[in-house]
Amino acid sequence: MRGIDLREMTELFAPPETFFDTTWLAEPDQLEALRDARLRAELRRASANPFHARRWARAGFDPASVRTAADLPAAPLYDVAAVRASIEAHPPFGEHQNFLLDGSTGARVYFSDGTTGRTRPTVNVPWDAEMYGVLTGRALWLAGLRPGDLVLNSWTYGTHAAAPFADAGARWVGCVQITASSGAVTPTVKQVELMRDYPVRSVLTFGTHLLNLAEAAAGMGLDPVADFTLRAFPGPSAGLGPKISAAWGVEAYESYGFNEVSYLGIECPARGGLHIQEDAFVVEVVDLETGDPVPDGQLGKVVVTSLWRRGGATVRFDSGDLSRLLPRQRCACGSWLRKMDYFQGRADNMVKLRGTNVWPEAIGKYVAACQDSNGEYHVTAHGQDHREELTVRVESPCDPRRRDEVAAALAGELKTHLGLRINVAVVAVGELDPLTGGGAKKKRFTDERPGCGV
Amino acid sequence: MRGIDLREMTELFAPPETFFDTTWLAEPDQLEALRDARLRAELRRASANPFHARRWARAGFDPASVRTAADLPAAPLYDVAAVRASIEAHPPFGEHQNFLLDGSTGARVYFSDGTTGRTRPTVNVPWDAEMYGVLTGRALWLAGLRPGDLVLNSWTYGTHAAAPFADAGARWVGCVQITASSGAVTPTVKQVELMRDYPVRSVLTFGTHLLNLAEAAAGMGLDPVADFTLRAFPGPSAGLGPKISAAWGVEAYESYGFNEVSYLGIECPARGGLHIQEDAFVVEVVDLETGDPVPDGQLGKVVVTSLWRRGGATVRFDSGDLSRLLPRQRCACGSWLRKMDYFQGRADNMVKLRGTNVWPEAIGKYVAACQDSNGEYHVTAHGQDHREELTVRVESPCDPRRRDEVAAALAGELKTHLGLRINVAVVAVGELDPLTGGGAKKKRFTDERPGCGV
Repeated sequence: MRGIDLREMTELFAPPETFFDTTWLAEPDQLEALRDARLRAELRRASANPFHARRWARAGFDPASVRTAADLPAAPLYDVAAVRASIEAHPPFGEHQNFLLDGSTGARVYFSDGTTGRTRPTVNVPWDAEMYGVLTGRALWLAGLRPGDLVLNSWTYGTHAAAPFADAGARWVGCVQITASSGAVTPTVKQVELMRDYPVRSVLTFGTHLLNLAEAAAGMGLDPVADFTLRAFPGPSAGLGPKISAAWGVEAYESYGFNEVSYLGIECPARGGLHIQEDAFVVEVVDLETGDPVPDGQLGKVVVTSLWRRGGATVRFDSGDLSRLLPRQRCACGSWLRKMDYFQGRADNMVKLRGTNVWPEAIGKYVAACQDSNGEYHVTAHGQDHREELTVRVESPCDPRRRDEVAAALAGELKTHLGLRINVAVVAVGELDPLTGGGAKKKRFTDERPGCGV
Repeated sequence: MRGIDLREMTELFAPPETFFDTTWLAEPDQLEALRDARLRAELRRASANPFHARRWARAGFDPASVRTAADLPAAPLYDVAAVRASIEAHPPFGEHQNFLLDGSTGARVYFSDGTTGRTRPTVNVPWDAEMYGVLTGRALWLAGLRPGDLVLNSWTYGTHAAAPFADAGARWVGCVQITASSGAVTPTVKQVELMRDYPVRSVLTFGTHLLNLAEAAAGMGLDPVADFTLRAFPGPSAGLGPKISAAWGVEAYESYGFNEVSYLGIECPARGGLHIQEDAFVVEVVDLETGDPVPDGQLGKVVVTSLWRRGGATVRFDSGDLSRLLPRQRCACGSWLRKMDYFQGRADNMVKLRGTNVWPEAIGKYVAACQDSNGEYHVTAHGQDHREELTVRVESPCDPRRRDEVAAALAGELKTHLGLRINVAVVAVGELDPLTGGGAKKKRFTDERPGCGV
């Protein structure tokens, strides 16, 4: 790799093959000392970034005042709106990325959304792009992939980041890769043929595509459990893990991350949440209204500080994603790395329905558990004042005559678990694509209430 | 990069930034000494590959008998049929690739064709995959790309090799990359928006897509020459270079390579053929019937021996592609690297028409030069015995009322240059996709003569 000292990188951030024998098993005081030292260094580095320097000066925050992660909440939060404003003021990449097309070698630019309109670029200098591979590779290793394992990368190679991250991750594990890209490039049936004809150990893609592949395999007269050589599915299965495991007869693992940070939370076989890669991230959870840190176990917005970048700096980025931190304790897997809960939805998707806060993604969890659904759903808020309603549309391959029955059962589940009456409509498979956008990162919510236009 | 000594690689094979100050300008005796030493070493290495060892023993060829490239024709040729047989006998990768899923790190598997049926896998161990980047990167540098230049990679990321090769090549130059993939993933209009909104210096893709992009830009009210920041288009423009240059106002360069070898021939601004990367390849041209080397300047099949692989070995692979070698002489660009002619067609597409040999690709050259055509064509051979005919269908955006006139003019050109009467039919843009297959590597010829089924 041109322009990167890989020896330095792998000494600072253990690659998958050594990570699980070292940092993964470190004692809490070691982990915290490492994290805090890196945090101090990163705050010094970020002081040179005009975007952060100006915001910090305005907020009266002195980066030298931070000794440990506990001091970090003195720094101001920033969110995607601030990133957009930075890009607007300093096109095309924004001052926060502090990046010039000046002969710097081999950066990569990804976009927040690959299909429509003006999108938000994220620049990764070569060090950062490789680090995505190291951090993603750990998730793949944890799920069970090993050097020499053949993997099919079925993320869509386009302007967004998932496919190249999976690609670099598999490379850092030492997997042998076949690139498939989306079904628009390599038809689903052809992907199943590759899985059948080569000893493929995993398919790197999103959850619903794994279910589509199982359905396609069955349609080709193949038995998804018996006729393949799979080992595990790591990646964002978005609550579809149990369905995927049942369909393919192998484990599916969750992870959490996004474009700007790579995989910060990774799931181990002991389950029960996502281990935070604490050598590379500080994760906080803050109150939705006040922005103040909330106690362990309480739901709030995930705030991320990355400790590994060499290009732009990410210090207290308010992701707008919902989750909770769990107290540090030794996991059954042996690791002391703190866990966070699985992705619980988007803060900005919150609906106050008849006085109760609801997140569409919480509904999605029960859709995923419904045996008759393929897990695809879309939630709409409508009505107004005291007549507000939520309607969830759910895809199901069931006989159309059974749709009312399936809808009633799911509505009952939602009433039991969320304590709310939510309308359920069952539709055919594929029917929600126009609402969700079809691709990997789906839109799950539309607010049709007056004054809540998209 | 895991498992590769990049220092060793860049000392053996200069990366783009140093190549043009070193090997590119070396004297003939230096070049030939380097090439011959590498050839001897590669033959020793390939002796351990059972596919080659057995073929050589059968042919009575002793690899130790080769001192220089002039001795190489003692070794037997092999072609894609032998590769297929090797895969058939030793699935899934074939004995010729001598590759096991045994914990070897991070290989990549590409396929000869990404869309239909059982396809031919090519395995690249990590060294080989990186070398594709070095060799491709030289082509990009030669065309004018430099570190920090922003490029849009619009090759299709699927099971074939073009997109990842361009990706690795741009990385070795130090370009900043945006991945677009094909129009099926990132719509053409969106690609034009990226070219407009970011200071894109080049689009890495095939020739007709560059023309499509220019048309889309014009359709959006943009001026392809004035409204963009392009520097040059390197890559397989398949004879469309002049059209592309006219449409975008920047140079387009040819290159030659294929899945198994990367770019072996690269075009310099002095034009007049493709410089062979002689530190990495031995290129021969052989008679279509006898397989014997032909004199410089004479048309024949391109035979390739690669000098840089660490996985499978390529020794005297008969590509089935037509070209000619040019005598070594110093080019106006300063390089002594031998040149070969541009790709002249496929040997197996040869048609004997009324006693004269014709290659459909030779017809394509005149289609590309036709002002009224977009360069897309498809040739059919039909009839039998003394009534054999060739018909070329040509896409044109012209007014349908002008089609007969355009057809007559092109038929006249073909008669003048090839000395043959060839039927020309002008059709609408896009109409040939079902015949050519649409994608990057198009099918240009169908033989409908009795007994010549596909």
